[in-house]
Parts: sequence; C-alpha cells; structure tokens
Amino acid sequence: MSDVLELTRALISRPSVTPDDAGCQALLAARLQAAGFACEHLRLGEVDNLWATHGTCDGPTLVLLGHTDVVPPGPREAWHSDPFEPTLRDGLLYGRGAADMKGSVAAFIVAAERFVAEHPQHRGRLAVLLTSDEEGDAIDGVRRVADIFRERGERIDWCITGEPSSKARLGDLLRVGRRGSLSARLDVHGVQGHVAYPDKARNPIHLALAALDALASRRWDEGYEGFPPTSLQISNIHAGTGANNVIPGELEVLFNLRYNPHWNADRLVAECEGMLNAHGLSFDIRWHRSGEPFFTPEGPLRLAAREVLAAFAGADPEESTGGGTSDARFIAPLGAQCIEVGPVNASIHQVDEHVAVADLEALPDLYGALLERLLA
Amino acid sequence: MSDVLELTRALISRPSVTPDDAGCQALLAARLQAAGFACEHLRLGEVDNLWATHGTCDGPTLVLLGHTDVVPPGPREAWHSDPFEPTLRDGLLYGRGAADMKGSVAAFIVAAERFVAEHPQHRGRLAVLLTSDEEGDAIDGVRRVADIFRERGERIDWCITGEPSSKARLGDLLRVGRRGSLSARLDVHGVQGHVAYPDKARNPIHLALAALDALASRRWDEGYEGFPPTSLQISNIHAGTGANNVIPGELEVLFNLRYNPHWNADRLVAECEGMLNAHGLSFDIRWHRSGEPFFTPEGPLRLAAREVLAAFAGADPEESTGGGTSDARFIAPLGAQCIEVGPVNASIHQVDEHVAVADLEALPDLYGALLERLLA
Ligand SMILES: [Zn+2]
Ligand SMILES: [Zn+2]
Repeated sequence: MSDVLELTRALISRPSVTPDDAGCQALLAARLQAAGFACEHLRLGEVDNLWATHGTCDGPTLVLLGHTDVVPPGPREAWHSDPFEPTLRDGLLYGRGAADMKGSVAAFIVAAERFVAEHPQHRGRLAVLLTSDEEGDAIDGVRRVADIFRERGERIDWCITGEPSSKARLGDLLRVGRRGSLSARLDVHGVQGHVAYPDKARNPIHLALAALDALASRRWDEGYEGFPPTSLQISNIHAGTGANNVIPGELEVLFNLRYNPHWNADRLVAECEGMLNAHGLSFDIRWHRSGEPFFTPEGPLRLAAREVLAAFAGADPEESTGGGTSDARFIAPLGAQCIEVGPVNASIHQVDEHVAVADLEALPDLYGALLERLLA
Repeated sequence: MSDVLELTRALISRPSVTPDDAGCQALLAARLQAAGFACEHLRLGEVDNLWATHGTCDGPTLVLLGHTDVVPPGPREAWHSDPFEPTLRDGLLYGRGAADMKGSVAAFIVAAERFVAEHPQHRGRLAVLLTSDEEGDAIDGVRRVADIFRERGERIDWCITGEPSSKARLGDLLRVGRRGSLSARLDVHGVQGHVAYPDKARNPIHLALAALDALASRRWDEGYEGFPPTSLQISNIHAGTGANNVIPGELEVLFNLRYNPHWNADRLVAECEGMLNAHGLSFDIRWHRSGEPFFTPEGPLRLAAREVLAAFAGADPEESTGGGTSDARFIAPLGAQCIEVGPVNASIHQVDEHVAVADLEALPDLYGALLERLLA
C-alpha cells in the first residue's frame, strides 16, 4: 500500500468532526518534525492549528494550506461502509474526508517529505498550515492564525490549498479566486392586526415586497476578471403563525450575497441598507461578513500550476473563481497569491464520500511538481 | 332575578364548546314548545340545529338566528372566575358566551314567548334557528340547514342575528351586511440549489416577489354602498429551512381576501390566478370560500331596526357592513333581508367575556319591539 494511501486511511479513521482534530495533527506533526520541519501548535479555543516550516525567510514562502476537520457524516445507515473506517472498493477509497480534504493533506505531507529530502537546501521556505476548523464557524482556525501572522509580520508569498477543486478529472480545474460572502438577517417591523381591519394594521409582508424585489432583481455588476456576477439570494422568508385571519407584526428574511472584487462588504452593506431605507421600511438588520473575495492574477504561481495541471490532466485546466469559500480568503489578505488544487469534488459533504485511489496516489507527485517549480 | 338573566346563566353553565351543544338547545326547545312553537331538531354530523316556528306561511317569515356554541375559554387561570360558572360582578355577567351569544339567544326566547303570548294570531311566521357550529368549521351548521331549506323551498323574508354588534352602547350599531371572505394557500415552485450557484437554481422567493407585490398593492375597488374597499392581505409567507446558503425549492403563501358585493369568489379566483400566471409563476393554489358577501338595502327591516335602536340608544345607529363573517351569509342567499343586532362586542372571544346586566335585560324588549313592528 502506498504511503499516501496509508496516511489518508490513518486520517480518515480519526473521527475529526469540526472542530475536533481527533489526533490528526499530532500524527502529521510527528512526520513533519522527523523530516526537519519546525512545528508550532496553535491551540485557539477548541481548535487545533499546526504551523510547520522548513527553510529560511530570505526567499519566497510557499504555504500548503489544509484542514483536518470534516463535516458530520449523518446517519451511519445511509453509508455503505462506516464513514470513519476507510474502505477500498473498486479502486475508490471511501470515508468521510477522503476527498475533503484528508487525501490532499496526506499528499501535502508526503510531497513535503520527499521535497526536503531531495532539496535540503531549497530556496525560501516551505510551510504547512493545518486547522481543525474550516468546515465550522472558522473563527478560531485560519482566520485567527492569519491575525497572529499579521501581528508577527509573517510574510507569505504563495499559498496552495488542497480543497477538492477538480470537476471530472484530477487537475481539470484550477481555482484562482473566490467570491466574497456576506449574509444578513433582516427583520421588518409592522403592526399586527386582523385581516378584516387592514387599516388598523401595518402588514410587514406587504411593506417589504417592493424592497425585496428591488434587492433580488438588481443586477449588481457584470462580473469581474472571470468571476461570475455578484448575486443576492433570499434564502429564507418567514411571517405569520398559520392563521389566515391575522396580519403578522413581523417579517424575518435571511439573504446572502456572493460578490466579486468589484465590491467589498462595507459598500454592499451601505448599498442594501440604502435600498431598504429608500422604501421607507422600519427594520433591523444584522450582518455576517464571511470573507472578502480574493483573486490571484497571472503570475509565477498560476503559471506553474497551469503547466503542472496540464501535464497531469492532458489539457489546460479551466481557471475558475466559482464555488463557495475556503480558508484562502484569510491568507490572501496577507498579500499572498492563492490557488486551490485538489481531487474531484463530486462526493464531498455527501454520504459515501470517496476519492479515486489513482488520483490520491498522483497527488503527491502533483504537489511535488509545484514545489519543484517554485522552491527548487 | 330576571327571566333573561336566569336563562343566560343556565346557558353559560352548559360548556358548549363548538360543536358541542351541551344541552342548550333541549332547554330552549322545551320553552319554545311550551309557548306553542313547532320544534324540529336537525342533528347533522356532530352538530345540533334547532328550527322552531310559530304562525303560518301566508305572511312574512322572520327568523331569529343564533348559535349556542362558544369558542374555547383558554386556560382557566387567565379568568377571574370560571368561564362556565356565570358570575355577577359590578353589574356585569361574566362567562364564556355571555356576549357571543348566549345572552342574545336567551333574549330571543324570552321575546318570542312574550310576543306569541300577546299576539297568538300574529301575522306571518316567527321562527328561531339555532346551531351549535357557528364558531367552528360551520359546515354542518347553518350552511347545511340552508341547503335543506333550499331543497324544501322554505321562504325566509327577514333574519335578525343576535351577533354582538354594538360598539360602546347597546344599539349604537346596526349591521346591514358583511364582506365575503376568500382564502388561498399558494405554493410557488422553484428549483433548490446552493446560493453560490444561483444559475443552477430557481429561487421561488425571487420569482414570486413581483406577483405578490402586484396582488398586495392592487386597489380592488373603491368600496360599495358603505362597504369598505375589498382588501387582500398576505397573512403567512414561508420559505427556507434556516440555512443561509441554500436557495429553497418552494415558497408557501397564505392570503385572504375580504370583499364587498362588487365581487364574488369566482371572479376573484380568476383574477388572482390570472395575475399569478401573468408573472409566469409555476404554482399550485388551493382556495377556501368562506362565504359570499351579503347586503341588506333600505327596506322595512332596516327601517324598523333603525328606529328601534335609536329609541334604545338615544341616537340613530351607525349602519355598518364591517367586521368578520356570521351565519347571515348562509341565510341571505335564500333571498332574506338580514341584519345583526346584539350586545357590546368588546370582550368577545377573550378571557373574562361579559355582558352588562342592564343591556342583557333590555335585549328582550329590543327584540320584542322589532317583532311588534314586523309581525304584530
Ligand atoms: Zn474542505
Ligand atoms: Zn357569535
């Protein structure tokens, strides 16, 4: 059994549901330390973070960024095999985290070991940064580690996240940016009453409809450097208690904005609140800023990644800024170029999550090729 | 203790929560029978209905229409005295149904007894119609009795309902019509998805906003013969499961129309569905027709009632078509002129429901005066 397969199995068998690291990082730190890395454990709240470095700061710093936590597996019965017992079937390795992203993390370690063994005097600095809170609130994970780095004046030039980015074939997609995400909970205030006496009530649903329609139908922009257009989606709307003869007093709305670098959170907040005020609504709103967008323009990191992925996949990768969010959003503001390269993502966060063994065994070579190009 | 007070107390002490008559009608039928009325019990489903008549069909038929059922009292602790133990305090009689409408029903009986005793050969026919399902589904109550009357060819000219119509003083308001009520449950269909990929989803909230705004902001009419304008109120709106990253697949909306005789239910249904279709929505809608509007124009019944109420209240009554619905909606379509005259409604359907003893003791005289004018 290959080294990376064995290490991935060892990680899957540790049930590290967010934010519990379940011993994954200790295992990985032991290996990195044996390979000559300096390891720093950053326990923040309930979250384990590992910062391991090899080399010196007089050249570029490249960070391999990953997470050891996984999303909950859901009911055991829904899985063909136990989500925390790594299982091989038909060339696939099954288990929670196989694709997101214990396979990538294991491949990082194997690639890093090989690289420093071959290039003990490589240029710059090779670092591995792991957290056990990427899938959860992501407050005491890379977000806080980045704050600590900022205080320390830690410089990061390049960051490769192992998030499962591939669509159909390993290496067919290179993620070079992510949209920002901004959430709101809007409470529109009215005055409760009886439907027979509408003049004595103020129906918050009626009052809000035009404003919500304006928010939902607005064309925020036309896209940005390959980013899709900024989009606002109302995800929840609730008013009324079931009775059809009562005008409710309150309307509750949740909405979310996914936005490209045309915008930042502060400007969107001002814009939305301005639209709500323009419609004369009485409202309260609470905002949750999940992360600003990031974008890595053409440069040495994208070039290296494109060429390496083309060699593995047999064709130039799609370069994309789509999808959700990742911890790269916290590293990018430090001034780092960030990309995401990992296995096929079709099964992530689902039952019977899996990774193809062939892809898993190719990953250390893929990451190793990137290290060769950037730090050798 | 006056006859009407004693009879009201006897009715309150029978806990006739809809649709349970709890023996009220047997008590009342015994008295009417003793007074010479022919009594017919119509047990329909779980509902008791009483049809008692005195006189002949060669003159006009006047129906005194009432209900023996009451709404549930809610928690006993919330009441100052037991809701089913009639209690006198400070000139008020407390108990569930005191105002809605056991007091009126008791007054009907006393007035009817006195009238036929004084006028054994009165013209036309005096009838009392009681149901034990006015506050509930109202399916096996007067709605079905009216169907039976229609089959029989029963003619009704005038109908006086004892619903608590007065606002501040007994007789200050004469109800001469009611709006119709039409309810809908609207399900708007979309396609669920992730907020990061809005192109793969169809957000039913977004799709519906403009159509709902059009429905809610439409001016349906300018009113009708003293009726307020027709009004549509969205009472409930629900979509989403709480997560702010999921675009829901379905939107559920409840709305209700209170409409004047400009409209009928069929035309409103067609109009609303036309508006929803015009917005290109994919939807299902279920309609509940609670009752068409009715309106009693100027004529002998309104004239008699106005003069009698003016004599009792010291001023001409307000003539109104406001408020919710009553069983008059089922009698009016038989061709009857309908009015509603009863005690002050401030405490109905609430804890500590009550009627002023002075008003209660005036009610048999008030109804009696109407009988004198119309059937003597
Ligand atoms: Zn992940
Ligand atoms: Zn009533």
